[in-house]
Amino acid sequence: MSTVNRGTTPEVLISEVGPRDGLQSISRTMPTEAKLAWIDALAQAGLKEIEVGSFVPARLMPQMADVAEVVRHSTARHPGITVMALVPNVRGAEAALAAGARKLTVPVSASEAHSMANVRKTREQMLEEVRQMAALCRCQPTHVPLEVGVSTAFGCTLQGAVPEDDVIRLADALAHAGVDEVGLSDTTGMANPAQVRRLFTRLRRALGERAGAAHLHNTRGLGLANCLAAYEAGVRTFDASQGGLGGCPYAPGASGNVVTEDLVFMFEAMGVRTGVDLEPLLVARAVLAAGLPGESLYGMTPEAGLPLGFTYADGRRPSPA
Amino acid sequence: MSTVNRGTTPEVLISEVGPRDGLQSISRTMPTEAKLAWIDALAQAGLKEIEVGSFVPARLMPQMADVAEVVRHSTARHPGITVMALVPNVRGAEAALAAGARKLTVPVSASEAHSMANVRKTREQMLEEVRQMAALCRCQPTHVPLEVGVSTAFGCTLQGAVPEDDVIRLADALAHAGVDEVGLSDTTGMANPAQVRRLFTRLRRALGERAGAAHLHNTRGLGLANCLAAYEAGVRTFDASQGGLGGCPYAPGASGNVVTEDLVFMFEAMGVRTGVDLEPLLVARAVLAAGLPGESLYGMTPEAGLPLGFTYADGRRPSPA
Repeated sequence: MSTVNRGTTPEVLISEVGPRDGLQSISRTMPTEAKLAWIDALAQAGLKEIEVGSFVPARLMPQMADVAEVVRHSTARHPGITVMALVPNVRGAEAALAAGARKLTVPVSASEAHSMANVRKTREQMLEEVRQMAALCRCQPTHVPLEVGVSTAFGCTLQGAVPEDDVIRLADALAHAGVDEVGLSDTTGMANPAQVRRLFTRLRRALGERAGAAHLHNTRGLGLANCLAAYEAGVRTFDASQGGLGGCPYAPGASGNVVTEDLVFMFEAMGVRTGVDLEPLLVARAVLAAGLPGESLYGMTPEAGLPLGFTYADGRRPSPA
Repeated sequence: MSTVNRGTTPEVLISEVGPRDGLQSISRTMPTEAKLAWIDALAQAGLKEIEVGSFVPARLMPQMADVAEVVRHSTARHPGITVMALVPNVRGAEAALAAGARKLTVPVSASEAHSMANVRKTREQMLEEVRQMAALCRCQPTHVPLEVGVSTAFGCTLQGAVPEDDVIRLADALAHAGVDEVGLSDTTGMANPAQVRRLFTRLRRALGERAGAAHLHNTRGLGLANCLAAYEAGVRTFDASQGGLGGCPYAPGASGNVVTEDLVFMFEAMGVRTGVDLEPLLVARAVLAAGLPGESLYGMTPEAGLPLGFTYADGRRPSPA
């Protein structure tokens, strides 16, 4: 299936995490065919990196039982897309590589309390796990990039504040362990723009080209403001989820992940090219909604529509409805 | 009634517009006593400027029929608060001054089409009206500041894009007409952070100390990102509405005005002192909800609560729940 060819180079990469982060956060299981239809529609909208699932035991997360199949189909159908999978450990990484994932992402907690609660491993043990995964990725016939998202980088619901020095020290250790990109995640929706700017500035100073994505949540409504601050600090890869699905929404009306539709609108309106088109993105939203009837989707731009006179960053007008 | 004494000087002024902008946008009428209870609670939370109503004919806007009474009571009860009223014309200004309003605000459209549709006057006619209001304010025993909010400053649902030169030219003419402060309003929720930064930077360059408030909407989810951009451009007064009430919400789930609770949380978390305390602000929210049973209120921070380990910009911890 061909993807949108925009003819201009995107300035930011929107990494769509909905099929993984979104679908693992809800209690229902989306049928494989519906997942694939959604991923097709996302690719059609111009998204170039899609996290399609998580290689975790099916008994722990039945929503992800078909992850290998989803990876295989997605890579086959979308040669131009970075089909990414989350892997919690070496075993998951092996399975993901066997299925043909083009990029792996591992969450590693900056909070020791969160790490123990989440994966029952210390940060030190996770670092060793990551070291092995990096070695595994390097010895593939074609290099498969390994990304780590440092979770609870902006605060933790178990330990409260997470010292910024801890975050940067961990990120540095991960880069030395052979990770290609280290991003920062506001797992619990505690980040504020000043902190985001400060921490990403430090990350970029410490890691240079290995400084990775901003994974920000909208728990307290600051998602886009935090993305703006990250952008101003030089971040160019942003995780987001269609319809704001996932990211542990705290309460009704509270979207967890930053909403892809609103993030794309913000950047394009600002004149920052995302490579994503909003009209087919809204089609993808409808495909998602059809695959999960009755599920709440978030996002203001889909409700309000594009403003009169809107132009994309590259000067194009939206196609007539 | 005493207001919160924080002991530190706020760095930004949050101007609460809910009792005017919020209450005039809903079809129900809030009883006068409920309005006053809400205003009391807002003052109690540390808000220092409150737009309590609109001096418009009661037959056009029955929600505001008690505005003179609300102004009189509010000024009597809250000597330390800038009790502000919206006035559309000289007649409204006379009534507001007679009731004892401490500051007047007038909307003037940057879009000719919006001006004609809204007040059936051209921008030139509104400028003349404002000139007379400024003269009226100046000859009061104590000077009553006159603010203009330039509406549709970031785009118009009737004419689409509004040239930035038109906005700055109008703002400049308003300042020369004797207005104390000229702010910019994203009446239709079309602003983006790059535009907000650009336009407020130009406004401040053109008007100096007379450059006024940012009145931003959350129609497409960009409310706080736009506030952040305005703050970075030097703006220090921000309009917001408790529970996001008002501002013409476009659709269910779409809050119109920037939500006071989320805005205060963002600034305080960033280390920017607002003078507003979140715990009594949530009490005020409950007072509002009690006065308008069944009305939808927006805001993520009230749902999620304050994060573990949160401290105010001045270093204080929230009081235990």
